[in-house]
Amino acid sequence: MSGNSIGKLLKITTFGESHGPAIGVVVDGFPSNFTVDWDEFQKFIDRRRPGQSNFTTSRNESDHFEVLSGIYQGKTTGAPITFIFRNQDFRSNDYQQIAETFRPGHADFTYSAKYGIRDPRGGGRSSARETVARVAAGALAIQYLAKMGIKINSYVSQIHHIKINQSYQFFSQDQIEKSPVRCPELAISHLMEQAIMKAKEKGDSLGGCIECVVQHIPVGLGEPVFDRLEAQLALAMMSINATKGFEIGRGFESALFYGSENNDPINSIENQKLNTSTNFSGGVLGGISNGMPLEFRVAFKPTSTIAIEQNTVDKEGNPTTLSTQGRHDPCVLPRAVPIVDAMTALVLLDFHLVHHAYFPSFSH
Amino acid sequence: MSGNSIGKLLKITTFGESHGPAIGVVVDGFPSNFTVDWDEFQKFIDRRRPGQSNFTTSRNESDHFEVLSGIYQGKTTGAPITFIFRNQDFRSNDYQQIAETFRPGHADFTYSAKYGIRDPRGGGRSSARETVARVAAGALAIQYLAKMGIKINSYVSQIHHIKINQSYQFFSQDQIEKSPVRCPELAISHLMEQAIMKAKEKGDSLGGCIECVVQHIPVGLGEPVFDRLEAQLALAMMSINATKGFEIGRGFESALFYGSENNDPINSIENQKLNTSTNFSGGVLGGISNGMPLEFRVAFKPTSTIAIEQNTVDKEGNPTTLSTQGRHDPCVLPRAVPIVDAMTALVLLDFHLVHHAYFPSFSH
Amino acid sequence: MSGNSIGKLLKITTFGESHGPAIGVVVDGFPSNFTVDWDEFQKFIDRRRPGQSNFTTSRNESDHFEVLSGIYQGKTTGAPITFIFRNQDFRSNDYQQIAETFRPGHADFTYSAKYGIRDPRGGGRSSARETVARVAAGALAIQYLAKMGIKINSYVSQIHHIKINQSYQFFSQDQIEKSPVRCPELAISHLMEQAIMKAKEKGDSLGGCIECVVQHIPVGLGEPVFDRLEAQLALAMMSINATKGFEIGRGFESALFYGSENNDPINSIENQKLNTSTNFSGGVLGGISNGMPLEFRVAFKPTSTIAIEQNTVDKEGNPTTLSTQGRHDPCVLPRAVPIVDAMTALVLLDFHLVHHAYFPSFSH
Amino acid sequence: MSGNSIGKLLKITTFGESHGPAIGVVVDGFPSNFTVDWDEFQKFIDRRRPGQSNFTTSRNESDHFEVLSGIYQGKTTGAPITFIFRNQDFRSNDYQQIAETFRPGHADFTYSAKYGIRDPRGGGRSSARETVARVAAGALAIQYLAKMGIKINSYVSQIHHIKINQSYQFFSQDQIEKSPVRCPELAISHLMEQAIMKAKEKGDSLGGCIECVVQHIPVGLGEPVFDRLEAQLALAMMSINATKGFEIGRGFESALFYGSENNDPINSIENQKLNTSTNFSGGVLGGISNGMPLEFRVAFKPTSTIAIEQNTVDKEGNPTTLSTQGRHDPCVLPRAVPIVDAMTALVLLDFHLVHHAYFPSFSH
Repeated sequence: MSGNSIGKLLKITTFGESHGPAIGVVVDGFPSNFTVDWDEFQKFIDRRRPGQSNFTTSRNESDHFEVLSGIYQGKTTGAPITFIFRNQDFRSNDYQQIAETFRPGHADFTYSAKYGIRDPRGGGRSSARETVARVAAGALAIQYLAKMGIKINSYVSQIHHIKINQSYQFFSQDQIEKSPVRCPELAISHLMEQAIMKAKEKGDSLGGCIECVVQHIPVGLGEPVFDRLEAQLALAMMSINATKGFEIGRGFESALFYGSENNDPINSIENQKLNTSTNFSGGVLGGISNGMPLEFRVAFKPTSTIAIEQNTVDKEGNPTTLSTQGRHDPCVLPRAVPIVDAMTALVLLDFHLVHHAYFPSFSH
Repeated sequence: MSGNSIGKLLKITTFGESHGPAIGVVVDGFPSNFTVDWDEFQKFIDRRRPGQSNFTTSRNESDHFEVLSGIYQGKTTGAPITFIFRNQDFRSNDYQQIAETFRPGHADFTYSAKYGIRDPRGGGRSSARETVARVAAGALAIQYLAKMGIKINSYVSQIHHIKINQSYQFFSQDQIEKSPVRCPELAISHLMEQAIMKAKEKGDSLGGCIECVVQHIPVGLGEPVFDRLEAQLALAMMSINATKGFEIGRGFESALFYGSENNDPINSIENQKLNTSTNFSGGVLGGISNGMPLEFRVAFKPTSTIAIEQNTVDKEGNPTTLSTQGRHDPCVLPRAVPIVDAMTALVLLDFHLVHHAYFPSFSH
Repeated sequence: MSGNSIGKLLKITTFGESHGPAIGVVVDGFPSNFTVDWDEFQKFIDRRRPGQSNFTTSRNESDHFEVLSGIYQGKTTGAPITFIFRNQDFRSNDYQQIAETFRPGHADFTYSAKYGIRDPRGGGRSSARETVARVAAGALAIQYLAKMGIKINSYVSQIHHIKINQSYQFFSQDQIEKSPVRCPELAISHLMEQAIMKAKEKGDSLGGCIECVVQHIPVGLGEPVFDRLEAQLALAMMSINATKGFEIGRGFESALFYGSENNDPINSIENQKLNTSTNFSGGVLGGISNGMPLEFRVAFKPTSTIAIEQNTVDKEGNPTTLSTQGRHDPCVLPRAVPIVDAMTALVLLDFHLVHHAYFPSFSH
Repeated sequence: MSGNSIGKLLKITTFGESHGPAIGVVVDGFPSNFTVDWDEFQKFIDRRRPGQSNFTTSRNESDHFEVLSGIYQGKTTGAPITFIFRNQDFRSNDYQQIAETFRPGHADFTYSAKYGIRDPRGGGRSSARETVARVAAGALAIQYLAKMGIKINSYVSQIHHIKINQSYQFFSQDQIEKSPVRCPELAISHLMEQAIMKAKEKGDSLGGCIECVVQHIPVGLGEPVFDRLEAQLALAMMSINATKGFEIGRGFESALFYGSENNDPINSIENQKLNTSTNFSGGVLGGISNGMPLEFRVAFKPTSTIAIEQNTVDKEGNPTTLSTQGRHDPCVLPRAVPIVDAMTALVLLDFHLVHHAYFPSFSH
C-alpha cells in the first residue's frame, strides 16, 4: 500500500486503523510561526465526533487529540506537525463476523485480495475513522485561510429525496450548526431528520449530498492541466469514504444547457477579481480560481453497514447472509460536513503556497 | 506553472500551446520491450482528430505524430517516449480578438491574472489541443492493457436532454464508431446529431456526458486512502478541458436509495474476482477494483466558444461584447471519447504497475 | 518546511523534535503480509542507542518503540506502519543557552532565519535524535532484504587520521559488533578508541568515515538519469546529520587513475550478474546495480557540540562565547553505522519494488 | 524506466537518445513573464559543445536548440518550456560493436539486463549527450538567479594528479573561460592540458574534480531532513554521467580535524546573513544555506571509452576484447563545468521557489 499522502507543498500523511492503537496524521509543510487557536481546533474536530445526536452513531469515540510534534509554545515551528487520536471503546466482538465474511459495500474482499491479509477490527484502515486525521489537519488549514479572509462553508444539501431549495448560498457556520443534520434550511432539516430516524428504525441507511461554498477566495489558485483546482478537489473529495460523485458549479446539469445559457457573462473586474452575472462555472476557469465563490457538490452513498440481512459469501467463498448489529451511522452526511471542509482547506492552502511561490516574485 | 505531469510510476508530462510550434508528451515509465502497433496507434489518435464529421470543428489540424525518443526498432526501450505534433493551419487572426478581450467561459482572465502574461493564439496552453498529447500517451497504454485482456470502451451517453436507454452496457468499439457522435444506440445517436446541427446553425453549443466501461479489469488496482482508483480517475477526468462532473457507478443517484437497495449483494468469488448481482459500486470497493466492470460517467459543459454575442470586458476591464467567428466544435463530446479512453488507460496502467510492484512478491 | 519524506513506492515520513513528546516515522508502501521479527527489530534499534559505551553520549534516551499502526497479529498489513519513540531524560536546562546563542556548526541560525521561530530544546527538529525514526523504518527494510538474501554491512573505516587497512571487505555483523566503535579491524579499533577518549577528555570531538558493502544485490536496482542508484544513495546519506561527503566505489580517488586503470574488466556473466576483476565502479554502471557488491563511503564531520569555548554571536547578533556542557557524543561514527545501514536498506527496497513493478512482467 | 524528472516546483524532464531523432527537456514550473536573453542562452549551451578544443571530442554535435513551447514574444509564459536538439553527425558504424559487446565502465550490460532491450547507437539513453538537455534547462535558471544577484561559478580544480592551489576561490567566468580546460589557475591549466594530450595520444583517458562556488546566495535555501540543500545537490551531481563522489565544504577532509578546528566561528550577522571566520561547512547548516558562499566538489572518473584494448564479454557472455576507435573526450571535465553550473542552478531556483512559497508570508 502506498498513497497515504496528499498535497504538494502542504502534504498530509494519515495512518492508523479503526481499532489499532491510534489514528494520526503528519502535516508537513505548514507555514511556521502560526499561533494555533486550540479551542477552535478542538471545536472543529468535535463537529466530526460520533454521538453528537440521534442521527449519528452512538459510539463514544474519544476524539481527544495529542500533539506529538511541530508545535512550540503554541506556535507552529515549520517542522512536521503530528496529531494522534488514541482508539477507545472497542467492542471488538461487534466485529467478529467481519473477519469471517465479506461485507457487501465494504473493502473486506478487495483488501484481502490485494494484501493477502486483513485487519478486520472495525474495518481496519478502510474505516471512516481515518477521516479524524484529515479533520485535524484541515482544522489547521482552515485557521490559516481564515486569517487570509477565506471562508469555507459546507452543508448538507440533500438526504435521500429531500433537497434544499437554495443551492450554493452563503450559509453561515451558525446557520449550519443550528441543524442537527447540518442542513441550513431548517424546515428541510426537519424532514431530513425524520427520514434518517425512519431509516434507522428499519436498520437501514441513507445517502445524500454535501455542497461547499468558499467565499473570498483569491484569484490564481490552481495550476493548469493536471493540477486544475477542480481536478485536485475531485481527487480530495473522492478520497473520502463513501463518496460516489463530484461536480463543480452547475456540474452534470450543465449538460442540459446551451453554451449561450451556460457561459457566465463577465460584468467587470473588481479588486482584480472577475465579476460575472452568474456562477455556473463554480468559480474556476481553466482550472484556476477566478475570484467568484468556489462552489462544488459531493455525493455520498448510503452507509454500507446496515442491520438488514444481505446476501454475501464468507472468506472461503461460500454463500451466507449477514446483518450487522453494531453501532453505525444511519447516515454519514452530518458528520461528513467537517471532512469536506477540511479537505477543501488543505487543497486551497496547498495551492495558495504554490501560487505564492511565484507571486509576487522579484520584478523581472 | 507546474502540474503538467500525472502518474506515479507511469508518468506523462504534456507541453505545448495551440498555436506554438508543437504539442507533445513525454511518457516516462512505460514498460520496455513492448512492440507498438503503429497502425493501431495512428487510428486511435485519429479518433480525436478534428474534421471527422459535420459534428466537429472543420479545422484541419494535422495529427501526424513524430517519435522523438524511447523507441528502437519499433519497440519501447524503457527510456522516456516522446511524441510531438507540429501545429499547422494557423489562422491566427481568427484569434486576434482573444488578445484584447476576456472570453466568457475561458481561461483568458485567470491565465492573465496568474501569470502576468498570456499567449492568446488559440488559447495557448489552455486549448483543448493539449489533449492530443494525452491521446498519444493513452494509445500506448491501451495497447498494453489490451494484451492483458483489459478493454476500455467509452461512448457518448448524453447530449443536451437526449440520453441513451442502456447505461453502462458493453458496447463494442465497432458499435461506438458506427455513430458519428460515438453514441452506440443508433436511434439516440440520430437525435443527438440533429440536436448538434441545430445548435451549430444557431452559433450555439451543447454539452453532455460520456460513460466509460472497463471489462476484464483485474482485482487490486487502486490504493487505499488518497490513491483510491475512483479518486485518481476523478482527478484524471476533471483535468480534461470542459469537464464539470465525475461519478462512479450509481454516482449522484445513489443518494436516492436506501443502503439495502444500494449495496451490491455478493454472489460468489470467481477466478478470484468478486461476482455481485448488481454493480452500483461501479467496480470499486474501498478504492480498489473488485473484478466487476469499472463504470463511471463524466459531464462536459457546452463548448464555451460560441458565435452568439456575449457580454464581457476587455483586458482593461471595460465592458464590451464578443461573438467568436472561428471554427469550433459545437459539441466536444464525440472527440472527447478517445480522451476519456486514454486517461482511463493511463490511470489503470499506472495502478497495475504499482500493484505489480508488490504482487506476486517473493513468498514471505 | 516540507521535505520530511523520502522514497517513491516505499516512502517514509519522519517527525518529532529532540525534546518534544515523541519522535516517529510513518512507513508507507511496505509490502504486506510480512512477519516482523521483533527481537531482531529491537536489537537493530539498540545499535543506535546512546549510552552503549564510553565512546558515545551517556544520555539515557529510551529507544523503546511503540507501534501505532500497520501491524496485525505480528504481520504487516499493507497499511502505513507507524512507530513512535517517546522522549525522556530531558535536562532542558542543559539546553537553555541554545535559546539565546547560535551554536557554531549547528542549525540554530538557519532555522531561526528561515522559520522566524525555533524550538531550542535539544536542537528541536535538527537533532540527530531524528535518526532513530530512520533506523526503525530501516530495520523493517533490512529484514525484508535479508529474506531476499541481500546483506548490508556498514562499519567505521576511519576516525580522525586512523584508517582501516582493508577497505570494502566483507566484514560480518559479528566482526563489526565486536568493536565498541564498530571498526572490524580490531587493532585499528583499539587506536580509534584511544583517539576518541583523548578527544573526549579535552572536551573536543572527532569525525571519520563509514563504509558500506552490500552483498548479493540483484542486478537492475536503480533507474537511469535522476534516479540512479548512486544518486539516490547520495541523497539518502547526505540527509543524515553531520555528513559532508559521499563517494561510490573508488570515488574521489578514481580521479587519480587512467581510464585503462579504472575500468573494471569484465570476466563473465554468472547467474545473470556481471563478474568483473576489480570493482572500482562500486557495483553500479549507468546508475543501475550490476550484480557486483555495492560499495560506498560516507564522510562525517566531528561533532559540532564541544565543551571547548568557541566564538559566536547571540540571537541579537552580539559577539559572545559558548562552551557546551551537555552530554554529547565525542564521535558520532559508532552510532551512525546502523543509520547508514538503515538508509541503504530503504533505498534498495524502494528500488527493488520499482524494478519489480516492471519485471518479470507479462510476456509482451 | 522512470526517474527522468527532477525538482519539486521547478521540475525538469529530459528525454532522448544519443542517436535517436532528438534530445530534449521539458522545464515545468519556471516563473512566468521572464525575458530570456537568447544570446546568453546559446552562449551558455555552447560551453558544453564538443569540438571546442583539442581537449574534447572532435564530434561535431549540433547544439542548435529549437523551442517547442512555453515562450511567447521572447518571454516565459508559465507554461512548460520545451527545448529539443536534433541529433546529427551520426556515424552509427562507429558504434556497431557496442551492439555485440558489453563495454567495461558503461551501462551496456545493466540496460540489457534491466530492460531486455537496448538501443546501442551511441549509448542510447545512457549517453552523456543527455546532459545537453540539462544545460538548456539550467541556462534559464542561471539567468533568473543572476537577476537575483546569485552567481554560480564552477571550474576544474583537478585533473589526474594535477590540482589547483587555491580551492574554493571566487574565479570570474572570464578567468575560467581563459583556460581551454576551464581551470582558472593558468599555470596549472597548462599542466592539465599537457596531461590530457598525453593520455589522448595513448588512447587513454583522465578524470578529475570540479569545484563549484556560489556567491550571494540568500539565507534559507534548503529544507530540513531529506530535502537538505547538500543532499539535493548530491543527488543532482551524482546524477551526472561519470560522477563518483560529492563533498560539501571541507568534505572528506573534515574527518581529519577536531571539532574545535572544524566548526566555523561566528563573527556577526550582516544583512541577515551569517558571517563566519572560516567556511568549512561550505555554506550550509542544518541543510539550509546560511549566507556564506556555497562550496562543493564533484569527482569524475576517467572517461570509460578508451582506444586501449580491454577484456570483456559479448552479449552471449563469451570472453572477447574491445578497443573503441570512436571520437571521444579523453577527459570530460572541461565540458562538464557548465553541466555542474546548470544542475546547481536548477536545485537553487527550485529551493528558492519553495522558500518563497512561505516567506515573506502574510503576517500571522
